[in-house]
Amino acid sequence: MATTPGDRPVLVVLGSSRPPHFEQVEERAEVRQVDDAGLPKAFPGADALFVWDFLSHAVPDAWPHAGRLRWVHIASAGVDTLMFDGLRDSDVVLTNSRGVFDGAIAEYVLGAVLAFAKDLPATLEHQRAGRWRHRETERVAGKRALVVGSGPIGRAIARLLRAAGLRVAGVGRRARSGDPDFGDVHAADELAACLPCADYVICAAPLTDATRGMFDADAFAVMQRSARFVNVGRGAHVVTDDLVTALASGEIAGAALDVFEAEPLPRDSALWSMPNVMVSPHMSGDFIGWESALAEVFADNFQRWLSSQPLRNVVDKTLGYPTGRPAAPHQAASGE
Amino acid sequence: MATTPGDRPVLVVLGSSRPPHFEQVEERAEVRQVDDAGLPKAFPGADALFVWDFLSHAVPDAWPHAGRLRWVHIASAGVDTLMFDGLRDSDVVLTNSRGVFDGAIAEYVLGAVLAFAKDLPATLEHQRAGRWRHRETERVAGKRALVVGSGPIGRAIARLLRAAGLRVAGVGRRARSGDPDFGDVHAADELAACLPCADYVICAAPLTDATRGMFDADAFAVMQRSARFVNVGRGAHVVTDDLVTALASGEIAGAALDVFEAEPLPRDSALWSMPNVMVSPHMSGDFIGWESALAEVFADNFQRWLSSQPLRNVVDKTLGYPTGRPAAPHQAASGE
Repeated sequence: MATTPGDRPVLVVLGSSRPPHFEQVEERAEVRQVDDAGLPKAFPGADALFVWDFLSHAVPDAWPHAGRLRWVHIASAGVDTLMFDGLRDSDVVLTNSRGVFDGAIAEYVLGAVLAFAKDLPATLEHQRAGRWRHRETERVAGKRALVVGSGPIGRAIARLLRAAGLRVAGVGRRARSGDPDFGDVHAADELAACLPCADYVICAAPLTDATRGMFDADAFAVMQRSARFVNVGRGAHVVTDDLVTALASGEIAGAALDVFEAEPLPRDSALWSMPNVMVSPHMSGDFIGWESALAEVFADNFQRWLSSQPLRNVVDKTLGYPTGRPAAPHQAASGE
Repeated sequence: MATTPGDRPVLVVLGSSRPPHFEQVEERAEVRQVDDAGLPKAFPGADALFVWDFLSHAVPDAWPHAGRLRWVHIASAGVDTLMFDGLRDSDVVLTNSRGVFDGAIAEYVLGAVLAFAKDLPATLEHQRAGRWRHRETERVAGKRALVVGSGPIGRAIARLLRAAGLRVAGVGRRARSGDPDFGDVHAADELAACLPCADYVICAAPLTDATRGMFDADAFAVMQRSARFVNVGRGAHVVTDDLVTALASGEIAGAALDVFEAEPLPRDSALWSMPNVMVSPHMSGDFIGWESALAEVFADNFQRWLSSQPLRNVVDKTLGYPTGRPAAPHQAASGE
């Protein structure tokens, strides 16, 4: 690492709460815990940054103060808040929390799919009014799901939906067949050709320049009128106004949204009160114990960084997500 | 069958709507379609009864008029409305609609389990109020489900919950291990010993004298305070007052109820408005197309009956459900 042997490295923790079980890190580093406003002052002399408040947008503006920074780790799967030129063009290594959220998000998606199929929101509305209203509802077995995003979260979703009897295909950067989780993976530029086949379209992609706004009027126009859209990626994957129009006009049948272009979702958003829309507050991955799990992922990488071992979950900054290849030790220790 | 060769048999259809695709049956039988009130008059001279309105309770009272009846088929899995002495002690063959509902009910149960784990009802409540309220929610992977009832519906539930990552055990008439769907099946008299281990207790049993009221104060008392109870069996499996007390006192954490002692659920039932209770109107198995599927099951058995082939889904009247063993042809044709 970038410190003189014997010195403790300087670690900036961005976020207002202390990560759980952080004693072991604190013993081995000079920890500067700051909120957004404090970041520019804390940056000078820092060796590493742990973005614990992964919703923060403070890093780009503070970046000019990050003189000798060598490593940034974020407590999320998405790294879109860190994909700015200053970091991308630097030698600073970026790692994420790949793997923590996969299973929980997959369960959320399957829960949303079953809630749509079994008309659960309407059942709860009738219950609230004390109404006994028998309806026929849909099977999910045999229905077609298109999972957009072939990273670990998309894979977990594909596996779980397939286990529940749906027919699954994926959309990823490269087309391929015989994938163990997806079967067929279609290339992103084939999205428009894949959408018409899907009963459920699930967005679990990383947010990059290539995927921003991919769910727009053109995309919703080619979906089935009976299709449901589930977004566990990022709000900016969607052109929100186009989604509202598609839902209002019946171009698609429903949406389960856990992420939004603006979070919290503004009070005046039409999405709050649209029929067949389920709004959840960016919580699909946040299972009981998630903060401990995130802190453990950081602590493991921190130990690796201290001992100049390859870091886990190194983001390919040209792609915007990890490729699964470990970083060479020199990446963590560059600058020594 | 019981008619003179050349004659068309007399088939009573109990229910106010005509079953779908019934032309082929009507060509080969004299069909008398009646509602509850018309049953006593329609019974004399009838050879077979198709209980299309499976919620009807009219058969026992009309039974003394069912002189030469040889076969009763019901458009449901449960045959509890037909388990009265007159039918049980007669030679009349009883068949049910085993298999039609299995997959749909399993999906409903998994949807309920995921709705509990992901706190979906609260999410929808917050949405209705325009509130952005982040919470941590539960995983279902690794949770323990106890499926009470080891018939085809219980098996489908067990398979689907297991596919979604839950650990599953069953309760059936006989204890056994190594079951392909359940792993361990515990005997019904071990229920009290099994309940404390379960995060989710699912009732999918046939309603018989042995299972009536099995979920009573004693059963709820030994469940975990975090346990959820899901009933897709029959309302009479549950002592409703005991369930309400257990929910109100926090002895169990929630319930998803599709069946009730009285249906429709009375307007003054406390269940309608209890927190953590999901009330659905006896619809868990009623997927789009279920009526056609039920009519097909009958039409297949009707064809078998006409040609003196073994009937499918013959109920063991001493047990109250089919054992899967085909009836010998003479059962269908007894009385010739």
